[in-house]
Amino acid sequence: MRTVDIIEKKRDGKVLGSEEIKFLLEEYLKGNIPDYQISAFLMSVYFQGMTEEELKYFTTEMINSGDIVEFSGTHKFLVDKHSTGGVGDKTTIALAPILAALGMGTAKLSGKGLGHTGGTIDKFESIKGFKFSETKEELIKLVTETGIGIMGYSDKIVPLDKKLYSLRDVTATVSSIPLIASSIMSKKLAVYADAIILDVKVGTGAFMKNYEEAKKLAETMYKLGKQFDRKIACMLTNMDEPLGNAVGNSLEVIEAIETVKGRGPKEFQDLVITISAQALKMKGDVATMEEGKRKVIEILESGKALQYLKNFIKESGGDPKICDDYSLFEIAPEIMQYHAKKTGYISKILADEIGKVAMMLGAGRSKKDDIIDHSVGLIMKVKVGDYVKKDDVLLEIYHKNNLTQNIIDIVENAIEYSEIKIEKNPIIFAIIEGE
Amino acid sequence: MRTVDIIEKKRDGKVLGSEEIKFLLEEYLKGNIPDYQISAFLMSVYFQGMTEEELKYFTTEMINSGDIVEFSGTHKFLVDKHSTGGVGDKTTIALAPILAALGMGTAKLSGKGLGHTGGTIDKFESIKGFKFSETKEELIKLVTETGIGIMGYSDKIVPLDKKLYSLRDVTATVSSIPLIASSIMSKKLAVYADAIILDVKVGTGAFMKNYEEAKKLAETMYKLGKQFDRKIACMLTNMDEPLGNAVGNSLEVIEAIETVKGRGPKEFQDLVITISAQALKMKGDVATMEEGKRKVIEILESGKALQYLKNFIKESGGDPKICDDYSLFEIAPEIMQYHAKKTGYISKILADEIGKVAMMLGAGRSKKDDIIDHSVGLIMKVKVGDYVKKDDVLLEIYHKNNLTQNIIDIVENAIEYSEIKIEKNPIIFAIIEGE
Repeated sequence: MRTVDIIEKKRDGKVLGSEEIKFLLEEYLKGNIPDYQISAFLMSVYFQGMTEEELKYFTTEMINSGDIVEFSGTHKFLVDKHSTGGVGDKTTIALAPILAALGMGTAKLSGKGLGHTGGTIDKFESIKGFKFSETKEELIKLVTETGIGIMGYSDKIVPLDKKLYSLRDVTATVSSIPLIASSIMSKKLAVYADAIILDVKVGTGAFMKNYEEAKKLAETMYKLGKQFDRKIACMLTNMDEPLGNAVGNSLEVIEAIETVKGRGPKEFQDLVITISAQALKMKGDVATMEEGKRKVIEILESGKALQYLKNFIKESGGDPKICDDYSLFEIAPEIMQYHAKKTGYISKILADEIGKVAMMLGAGRSKKDDIIDHSVGLIMKVKVGDYVKKDDVLLEIYHKNNLTQNIIDIVENAIEYSEIKIEKNPIIFAIIEGE
Repeated sequence: MRTVDIIEKKRDGKVLGSEEIKFLLEEYLKGNIPDYQISAFLMSVYFQGMTEEELKYFTTEMINSGDIVEFSGTHKFLVDKHSTGGVGDKTTIALAPILAALGMGTAKLSGKGLGHTGGTIDKFESIKGFKFSETKEELIKLVTETGIGIMGYSDKIVPLDKKLYSLRDVTATVSSIPLIASSIMSKKLAVYADAIILDVKVGTGAFMKNYEEAKKLAETMYKLGKQFDRKIACMLTNMDEPLGNAVGNSLEVIEAIETVKGRGPKEFQDLVITISAQALKMKGDVATMEEGKRKVIEILESGKALQYLKNFIKESGGDPKICDDYSLFEIAPEIMQYHAKKTGYISKILADEIGKVAMMLGAGRSKKDDIIDHSVGLIMKVKVGDYVKKDDVLLEIYHKNNLTQNIIDIVENAIEYSEIKIEKNPIIFAIIEGE
C-alpha cells in the first residue's frame, strides 16, 4: 500500500476502505508517514469530504490510537455533555449537580481554554483548593460518591488527534466537517458514557459561525455516534452573544451556582433545564421534554442540586461555603462601568470580541502556556434585544488596572444599536435526537 | 505574512498577489517554510487552479530561483522545441540538423528518460564517444559552429522545480495543469531562445491521456509564454501508439538519421517537417505552413541537413561515419519476432506498454540512477490502422537474452485487433499559435 495512492484516491473523490485508512493513520502515528503527505491528504478531505463509512473507520483509528476509559461500578446512568466552545459557557458547572440530583452521573474529560473561549477546568479552578481527579480510579470514586466526575484530558486519550490537530492548525485544514467531527467524537467515544449530549454552538463567538455548517457538523456527529451504537443527541445553540451574563472564571462559576439555585440568567437557565430534560429522556425516565423540564424544575426548587454541587466541591478539596458566600471567590477589585453610546435596541453583542476582551484582561490564554487570572472578566447588564438609553450601564469590566484604550475600543466595536426593535434568535435552535 | 493564511486563501479560491506567491516560494526554497505547508498549498492549487496572473508570478519565482541562461553572439534565430515526453520520441535528433540547415539554431537543455519515456540525452549517448557540452560557453560555441546546441539540465536551472516536483510526486499533486505548466515553462523561460515550440503529447504513452486536459495544458503554456513576451507555438500531437517505428536508444537514433535523410516513417517524417515549417514561420522566413513545408522538403532533398548532423556529431566527439554505417551503433544481438495473434486491423498499440517493455529490456530507467542499455528496444513493423494476417510479424524485440514471458505478455496485451477498418487519429491534432 502506497501513501501517495491513498492521497490520490481521496483527491479524486473515490471511497477509501478501512485497510487504507488504518494504514494511513497507524503509520502516521508511528512516524512512518511524513507530515507532508498527511497534510496533502487532509486538504483532499477538505475538498472531497468523507462518506459515513470512511468517517467511521477514521474515527475508529483515532479512538484506538490511545487509551479507552471505561467506568465500571458507578451504577449510574452516565452523561457526557460536550460543548464545541463558546464565550461565557459555564454549562457543565451548572448541569453536573442537577444531573446528579436527578440520579444520573457526569463522567467526562474537559479541556482548558484557548483563545476567546474558556475551559471548564479553568473555571472550576477559581474555587480555592479545588483539585481535579488525576486518575481514572479517583474519577470513578468521585462519580460514585458525588454523581460528578470531571477530569482534564490526558495525552493518552486519542494522541492521534493531538498530532493531526497540530498539523491541521498550520495547513488550513481545521475547518473540515469530517475532520472536526472525528476530532470531537473520537475523544467522546474513547471515554465511555451512557449518553452523549453535544452542544454545537453557532454564531460569532463559536467555532462554527454559519448555521448551515453547524447543522451539518451536528448531523455528522450524531450519525457517527449512532454508528458506534451510542445514545446521542446534538443541540444547535446560539452563540451570537455571550452565554448568560458573566464572562471570566470566578464570575462564571458564581453565575453557574446561581443557576443551580434556580435563579440564573433566563436564557442560560433555560438551556441548562433543557439539556437536563434531554438527559432524563435519554435515560428513559421521562417520555417528553415537557415532563423532563417539570422534573428538573422540581429538583431545582428542592435545593438538592446545590447539595450535590457543595458535596462535589468538598470532595475536590474546595470549601463548599463558597456557594453561599461569593466573597470567598477572588474577584478583581477594579470595576469599570461601560455606558451605552446611543439610545435604542441592542442589536449585537459580538461574543468573540467580548471573549477576546476577557482574554486580554487575563481570563484566558492567547498561547497554551499562558497563566490565567481567575478574578477578571465582564458582567453583561443587557442582552441582545434590550432597549437601552444613552449612558445606561451596558456591562461591567472587572480588571486589575490593566484596562487599556484598545480594550475599551474592542468593547465599543462589539456592541451595535438599532433604532427599530430586534427579533432575537432563540437560545436553542434545534435538537437532533431519536433513533 | 503567515503561510497558513496564504494556504487558506488559495483553498477558498481567492486570488493570491505577487507578494504572497513570492513569500511562499522564496521562503520555501530557503527552507523556512516546511514541506507539509507547501503540500497543503499544492493540493489547494490542484482543486482551485491559478489565475493567469497568479501563474505568471508563480512561474517568475520558479525562474528566479536559479540561473538564467542567455546565448549571445550566436547570430542565429534560436529555437527550443520541447516535448512533454512520449514513447519513441526522437524528434529533437531529427529536427535540430534540419533547423540548422534552414539557417536557424537549436539551443536547448534536455532531460534524461524516466519510466516509460526516453530522453534526448540518453539517445544521443548511443553514439560512441558522444559528449554533451558541460558549460554555457561550450554550448554557445557549438551552436555558432554547428547550429545545434543541446546540453543536459543542470541543478542550477530552476532548482525550485526540482524541490517542488519531489514533493508533488509523493503527495498526488503532479497532475495539476498550472503546476505542470509552471514546471515546464519555467525551465523553457530560464533558457533564452527566440522561439519556443512545445509539443504536447496526448494519448496512452503521454503524460496527458486526455485530449481536453492536454489542450488546456497547451493553452495555459501558450498564454504563459505570451505573458513573458516570447514567440511561442504549442502543438497537440498523437501519442496513442509509439512515435515512428523504433523504440530504444540506438534504434531511435538510426530512425532519426533516416528521417534527416528524408526517408523516416511517414508520420514521424510529417511531424518533423511540420515543426520545422512552424519554426520557419515563427522566424518570419515564410508566410504559410505550406511554404514552410516546401522549403523543409527542399532542404531534406539537398542532403544539407545530414551534413549538419554529421558536423554536430563530429564536434561532440562522435564518429560522423555512423550516419552512413549503422553497424557502428551497438545493437542487441538477439531479435525476437512477435507475430499477430489474429487476422484483422490493428486497433491499438498501447504506447505506454511498449515504453514499459523497452524499459524492462534495459532501454530506460525505472529509478533515477538505473544504468541504460543503448542497444535494446523494439521496431514496430505495423502501425494502428494496418491490416494484418495471423502470424504476420508485428514487431521485433531487440534484447540481450533477458526476454521474459512477462514482457511478451505485456506486448500481447498492448496490441488490439478489430474486424472492421479503423479510423486512425492524425499525428498532429492542433497547433496553437499567433498573436
